[in-house]
Amino acid sequence: MTETKKPDPKFERAIPPGDNVERSICAACGFIDYQNPKIVVGSVAFWEGQILLCRRAIDPRKGYWTLPAGYLELGETAEEGARREAREEACARLEIDRLLAIYSVPRISQVQLMFRAHLVSPEIAAGPESEAVGLFLWDDIPWGDLAFPTVDWALRHFQEVRGRDGFAPFSNPVDGV
Amino acid sequence: MTETKKPDPKFERAIPPGDNVERSICAACGFIDYQNPKIVVGSVAFWEGQILLCRRAIDPRKGYWTLPAGYLELGETAEEGARREAREEACARLEIDRLLAIYSVPRISQVQLMFRAHLVSPEIAAGPESEAVGLFLWDDIPWGDLAFPTVDWALRHFQEVRGRDGFAPFSNPVDGV
Repeated sequence: MTETKKPDPKFERAIPPGDNVERSICAACGFIDYQNPKIVVGSVAFWEGQILLCRRAIDPRKGYWTLPAGYLELGETAEEGARREAREEACARLEIDRLLAIYSVPRISQVQLMFRAHLVSPEIAAGPESEAVGLFLWDDIPWGDLAFPTVDWALRHFQEVRGRDGFAPFSNPVDGV
Repeated sequence: MTETKKPDPKFERAIPPGDNVERSICAACGFIDYQNPKIVVGSVAFWEGQILLCRRAIDPRKGYWTLPAGYLELGETAEEGARREAREEACARLEIDRLLAIYSVPRISQVQLMFRAHLVSPEIAAGPESEAVGLFLWDDIPWGDLAFPTVDWALRHFQEVRGRDGFAPFSNPVDGV
């Protein structure tokens, strides 16, 4: 994702008529900027016991390892978005298996939908937002160099139900933020 | 939800620098309106075998029955948003049980997270966005007067796993839109 440009300082905070929440309203044109939480879609994708990770080529957390994931775009289903992110970041083709977890990150107003998936082939390559991509056995995962807490959560939740079908999806771990 | 005011016609479509998707950019102030899919959170909430429904007092689908649901607000977890919507629309207090389903509605760029929940007490009352609220036995549900297809899907998915714990969440039914 490209960084979102901050709105011009002409924006002022006020409660629009008929609303009950303060919004950003442009003093120049009257536009009301209704902001909503964003949906991140991603995958723990595996191939013969190995898990796909991408080393980020962009901030935040450039140089750290992450799962293929990003913002859902307009007009996509959640599963389509997760497949597109894997294609863009790791040139990888996925088949989605099932929902692994829903994590809420209210501090940055994100809901993350993480799927369990498998690679259709082991052919992967770094896309423009990745410095490197790799397939990792569990014991080789760079635990100290993961980009975000939710990457750690998703990997551990994946491991907890590896090989199982009838599980309920996880949410934030109790000791998570 | 109040209807979102349409942006002023000063908005023009163009691809911002460093982006690869066309966005709405205000000719008056330069603001880039990054639009993202919206998250709807809602519940199938029950009390002694009866399910909570609300008759909508607002468009779209005014006068039709729906589950308590609405847009997730900034800074909320998905579960907090689902509880808030039940409080606002039906003056109901819920305890969330688990995720029942994720429905994608790409035509209107929505992802709906529907939880299974139970009412803490049977005291309910119509909030400002509801004409009426009620607790319905399965056979008394007004099937012909439901507001949206996803309400129908969530009710039938709820019934399919009633009393069960270890189920995977549903997504769009295969014959759904």
